[in-house]
Amino acid sequence: MQTTTLINRQVRLAARPVGLPKPGDWQFTEAPVPALAEGELLVKVLYISLDPAMRGWMNEGKSYIPPVGLREVMRASGVGRVIASRAAGFAEGDYVTALTGVQEYWVGRADASVARIDLRLAPAPVWLNALGMPGMTGYFGLIEVGRARAGDTVVVSGAAGAVGQTVGQVARHLGCRAVGIAGGPAKCEFVVKELGFDACIDYKAGNLRDGLKTHCPEGVDVYFDNVGGEILDTVLTRIRLHARIVICGAISQYNNTAPVTGPSNYLSLLVNRARMEGMVVFDFADRYAEGVQAIAKWIAEGSFKTREDIVSGLENFPQALLMLFEGKNFGKLVLQVAPD
Amino acid sequence: MQTTTLINRQVRLAARPVGLPKPGDWQFTEAPVPALAEGELLVKVLYISLDPAMRGWMNEGKSYIPPVGLREVMRASGVGRVIASRAAGFAEGDYVTALTGVQEYWVGRADASVARIDLRLAPAPVWLNALGMPGMTGYFGLIEVGRARAGDTVVVSGAAGAVGQTVGQVARHLGCRAVGIAGGPAKCEFVVKELGFDACIDYKAGNLRDGLKTHCPEGVDVYFDNVGGEILDTVLTRIRLHARIVICGAISQYNNTAPVTGPSNYLSLLVNRARMEGMVVFDFADRYAEGVQAIAKWIAEGSFKTREDIVSGLENFPQALLMLFEGKNFGKLVLQVAPD
Repeated sequence: MQTTTLINRQVRLAARPVGLPKPGDWQFTEAPVPALAEGELLVKVLYISLDPAMRGWMNEGKSYIPPVGLREVMRASGVGRVIASRAAGFAEGDYVTALTGVQEYWVGRADASVARIDLRLAPAPVWLNALGMPGMTGYFGLIEVGRARAGDTVVVSGAAGAVGQTVGQVARHLGCRAVGIAGGPAKCEFVVKELGFDACIDYKAGNLRDGLKTHCPEGVDVYFDNVGGEILDTVLTRIRLHARIVICGAISQYNNTAPVTGPSNYLSLLVNRARMEGMVVFDFADRYAEGVQAIAKWIAEGSFKTREDIVSGLENFPQALLMLFEGKNFGKLVLQVAPD
Repeated sequence: MQTTTLINRQVRLAARPVGLPKPGDWQFTEAPVPALAEGELLVKVLYISLDPAMRGWMNEGKSYIPPVGLREVMRASGVGRVIASRAAGFAEGDYVTALTGVQEYWVGRADASVARIDLRLAPAPVWLNALGMPGMTGYFGLIEVGRARAGDTVVVSGAAGAVGQTVGQVARHLGCRAVGIAGGPAKCEFVVKELGFDACIDYKAGNLRDGLKTHCPEGVDVYFDNVGGEILDTVLTRIRLHARIVICGAISQYNNTAPVTGPSNYLSLLVNRARMEGMVVFDFADRYAEGVQAIAKWIAEGSFKTREDIVSGLENFPQALLMLFEGKNFGKLVLQVAPD
């Protein structure tokens, strides 16, 4: 085993950011890869998922998972290749997804959070997108929390992003009308022409309210919210009786230094006997296989598209992460750490 | 029939209020009672329910029911005695609840909104409280929307008010821990000692957050919100996994001239996979008999208390309504229009 001679480059959280993460909030370190204990894997990390949720993990305080500790390797989902295994069920050469963290090599226990993946179904980055957490978030969030049914009008913000892509395409497969909200004409065109949404509203053009009237003439049955802020508040004015709002994220608020802006129009929930419900994808972990199977089948049939925005090089992690909060990524943002 | 000689004093909406309703927003008029058409009843109004929801009915714009029109008799639920009937199933001397409006006599069709009541089960004002809309709101809101289950910790704001009284007492009957939020020590003492809540937090004492920590040490499973604003926002910080927040009203916001304050802590719904859902009691109209039967049985057994705050005289309607928004009523606020 060569493992003890490998040097692992890692990105650690140096300071808790105030507002947008700054370069000084990160620390690049190098350390030798430790020897494997029984039950552990050594994985060469190929791709890392860059997710809005990462911003929340950098804050102190209670949330759905503990924060990343100071001087710890930044938490991230990744895809990698097993280069040494002392765990049953995993062999050298297997591809896996795991919470690898932002580093070149991951050593850890082969527990339930590690899954073997089949690159014949889709290339590695797709396993961080439609076949990974974002896909599972969109799939189970729409079906189980949003309770979307054929004939419903489904609106999703961040429509060109990782979760949004999935929500709209799953909605279409369910027989719903799918209306996206995205920033800029290029994203909107992609969402309609490539992904097959019925419509997409460019919120940057400043006509969200009119767009909702035009494209959701009977109102909104399901709103899948990835952004919060003014967009959530505007959609609240257009919901239908018994609407369901899935609170999946609030990217507009994650870098706030002031308090989060609450939805001023929340009493629309009362008028419309509607529901706003939070979701965390991990709650559906025991059903990921079902979600992966459904989406992989649609991908194979050609009725489900994915788009990734791939940035290369571990050293580019800090700048790449900022793209999410500036809406600069076009598709699921992935950091390539090593060639496949 | 003497009906054509009766003079009916009425309270009409003269102007749409800005902020708290002013005396000039009302108009007192007199008109002869019209002759009865086939299918109609003439009811002498005895008690009128004063409800926070009335404030919303005075505003223009879409809501769960149309606004009261300018120069129309103000909408209100009432209890009265049938003094003439041309409707099958109703006889002179029957007591009924109906949307009588704020006036001395009501003439209208004996449709599904008119219900005969039995004063042997409870005195007339109770039929505007625990056995009326507020009671049904609390009963079905807690059970069907809040999905309260034995062992849950249930928190209700406006605990000494009409809906709050019912929510806490139904919660206790379900085997829940019932914690009230009310303004001032007298209301809190009443809620605990008379109504049997497990605890009550005086929000005016300025220690709501600490009170919730003390009295809901494991967090809040169901929050029944009648008030909105800061109280809702504070409770959001203490909800448990899979909590249900019933949005029944927002009395703190009804007289706003600025936009409603949205719940800044709504992302607690995400962290806790919790739900916030609006309710309107009319949706449960076909099940009122079930709710009345359950609560009337508890009243008869002595395990359910009600408290009404009765103001006398139609002329006192404008001032009495303001008591609601100043938290001055102690118990369900009822206006007595005529002696029983």
